Amino acid sequence: MSKTRVLTGITTSGTPHLGNYVGAIRPAIAAARAADAESFYFLADYHSLIKAQDPARTQRSTLEIAAAWLACGLDPAKVWFYRQSDIPEIPELTWLLTCVAGKGILNRAHAYKAAVDKNRAEGEDDDAGITAGLFMYPVLMAADILIFNAHKVPVGRDQVQHIEMARDFGQRFNHIYGDEFFTLPEALVDDNVATLPGLDGRKMSKSYDNTIPMFVPRAELKKRIAGILTDSRAPGEPKSTEGSALFQLYQAFASKDDTAAFAQAFADGIAWGEAKQALFEKIDAEITPLRERYEALMAKPGEIEAILCDGAARLRTAYATPAISRLREAVGLRDLSQVVLASAAGNPPKSVDTEVPSFKQYRDADGKFYFKLVQGERVLLQSAGFDSPRDAGQRIASIKSGTLDADVADFMLGEGVSSDEVNAALEAFVAAALEGQKG
Amino acid sequence: MSKTRVLTGITTSGTPHLGNYVGAIRPAIAAARAADAESFYFLADYHSLIKAQDPARTQRSTLEIAAAWLACGLDPAKVWFYRQSDIPEIPELTWLLTCVAGKGILNRAHAYKAAVDKNRAEGEDDDAGITAGLFMYPVLMAADILIFNAHKVPVGRDQVQHIEMARDFGQRFNHIYGDEFFTLPEALVDDNVATLPGLDGRKMSKSYDNTIPMFVPRAELKKRIAGILTDSRAPGEPKSTEGSALFQLYQAFASKDDTAAFAQAFADGIAWGEAKQALFEKIDAEITPLRERYEALMAKPGEIEAILCDGAARLRTAYATPAISRLREAVGLRDLSQVVLASAAGNPPKSVDTEVPSFKQYRDADGKFYFKLVQGERVLLQSAGFDSPRDAGQRIASIKSGTLDADVADFMLGEGVSSDEVNAALEAFVAAALEGQKG
Repeated sequence: MSKTRVLTGITTSGTPHLGNYVGAIRPAIAAARAADAESFYFLADYHSLIKAQDPARTQRSTLEIAAAWLACGLDPAKVWFYRQSDIPEIPELTWLLTCVAGKGILNRAHAYKAAVDKNRAEGEDDDAGITAGLFMYPVLMAADILIFNAHKVPVGRDQVQHIEMARDFGQRFNHIYGDEFFTLPEALVDDNVATLPGLDGRKMSKSYDNTIPMFVPRAELKKRIAGILTDSRAPGEPKSTEGSALFQLYQAFASKDDTAAFAQAFADGIAWGEAKQALFEKIDAEITPLRERYEALMAKPGEIEAILCDGAARLRTAYATPAISRLREAVGLRDLSQVVLASAAGNPPKSVDTEVPSFKQYRDADGKFYFKLVQGERVLLQSAGFDSPRDAGQRIASIKSGTLDADVADFMLGEGVSSDEVNAALEAFVAAALEGQKG
Repeated sequence: MSKTRVLTGITTSGTPHLGNYVGAIRPAIAAARAADAESFYFLADYHSLIKAQDPARTQRSTLEIAAAWLACGLDPAKVWFYRQSDIPEIPELTWLLTCVAGKGILNRAHAYKAAVDKNRAEGEDDDAGITAGLFMYPVLMAADILIFNAHKVPVGRDQVQHIEMARDFGQRFNHIYGDEFFTLPEALVDDNVATLPGLDGRKMSKSYDNTIPMFVPRAELKKRIAGILTDSRAPGEPKSTEGSALFQLYQAFASKDDTAAFAQAFADGIAWGEAKQALFEKIDAEITPLRERYEALMAKPGEIEAILCDGAARLRTAYATPAISRLREAVGLRDLSQVVLASAAGNPPKSVDTEVPSFKQYRDADGKFYFKLVQGERVLLQSAGFDSPRDAGQRIASIKSGTLDADVADFMLGEGVSSDEVNAALEAFVAAALEGQKG
């Protein structure tokens, strides 16, 4: 049996800081080591273009982030580690999915809606300054996931909606083209992900300018830590660990026992300077070996480039290229020499329009029961989900017995299909059934 | 000097009919022969996926249409003849353009608005049943054009807006990334394009089911022509050429002299049967040699496949691959081994933020004079167009002399740039200027 495929996207903007390390890099690498899974880690540089329009920074940030993950122990021999923009199958699949994705679904994406709300609050046009990139982000993300048929995607709660969209687009494609081309991915939400406070106590984030970069020199690390905001309690006064950024930072790097001892030191009135020194030593002990590897990697960017190119090349061979071939075949972007020709057979090819339609029943990932009416490779009718196969079967029987009852909204017409076409197809169905009874 | 590049997209849906031949294929091939231009003809199969979701038809239609163009004399040794989906640089560029295209502009596309209007008229949600494909169509079309820096795109009047959008997206990209990466294309509208009437007198169109397929057997062609609607005037009665589909069809295939003679025959009371026979003979004379070539081509679909693959391969080498390399470099999707490193130089890299900004003046394709304020590779400020270089220069001087006057709306901030950043940059500018005066 094939392993569970777990896919993680890595934002390629900014310089990696301790918040990224504690919240994303460290747990992801631990998970990759522990899990009996096939892990995919990719640098999402196409995504970064939506916001970042400074090419030199895009390039440098990609390098720094790749080096950071490698320095922290990501093993490109054991996991797939690649750069999104090295997989041309991803933008191609993005277009195929664009053709099936409902625009109405994209209108409801949180990130897009937040941008619209901001414009409204400022009295601007809804879409002022909004690029199509922001709007289409969920389709690109769906392609990232679906091209590898990933089973699970670890994401923050704010990204769950995007995974649902990827499921929706994948499912639509599966329905339209009549096969299980795509595995429908699941969001893997870990609500216990540590968010690290920054120098000012708010969440550590580039946008608050309160970060401690991962790989600053030791002296600079010490200086940054000295700059952490504290209250003004004097040495000897008991200090509260509650809401203390300094304490939370310590906790993120210390064992349980050390953390308990540190809490005791707070209660005992440790001086802030002393506490900061203890924090510096904890962080430095963990980061120093990583920093050494990071610096060695950054000194040889050609090696990082080679690792990424190699990962992408192997991954394309193993997954992306066969996948896109199958998908191109599915939508009809096919080798023309394979067309079944009238002249070759000596007979005109059977017209698709007069092919006998048939109902196909199936159970979908949501546990519900569906059916569709297909004619050749065309989906004429797609049902909504029924709670039991029996309900679905009864509906099929009612459709077979008459023409469409358009008032019952438990099915939808296939794309570009008119109800006249469906009725004509159903007549062919009935005629064929009669023919069968005769035989 | 390089030749003018003229790019024509060919819809790959349906079976080619006489309306396609007279309105598109025949004039385009004549133009390609006559013009001192570099001509690009492509089968727009990615576009066809927006509507067509029947893979067997997509494939067959692509084959038939390719064979039709070749049969009519398109010479793949003299023009670029290729299939859109064989150029992976097109979907990749589509994403790059998606990141700069304003969503608000796409909202105004005629085809999208028409679909929304239809939904509203039917009391549906605005975007009911509308795919992202319909919405994003203009961005894909822009990529089709811009990847080859086409100068001219022959289109119907209804497509002019799409060319304007391609210009807009190309111009935005040029501005953001600070160079003339894209030639801004022009629409080539020929209002004299013949629209052929169909069997019922309305425009010949697949959607009216009134077509005469180009390559039906002779007997079938005769039968179709016999089915053209006429009035009921008896033989001997004078007939009007005005509004006569039969006459217009004849005219599309006859010389001026023959047309005049046919008009005379109408005035003289030619019988409808006789007129139809004359029309059949005219069409048949022109189509028969084409039909023979078409049938020979259709019997060897592998050869058509090979022609298209060869065209795409040569075109990628000549244009698409170098173009996308340059564009990837421009946006920052770069070889990481080329990053200028702190450690390599022994010094920290010069921060982009403190680089001295500079004004760049230029004239754009619209004939107006522009300037931008750039810092490193970042565009801080982009002016509107001025009528003279002097006006632009004066505005630069006024900006240099003070901080931004945000009330004058003749410039816009670069993407993601705040006016504080611009003011800071301008201070650096002034400081550098003072430094220069000292030296």
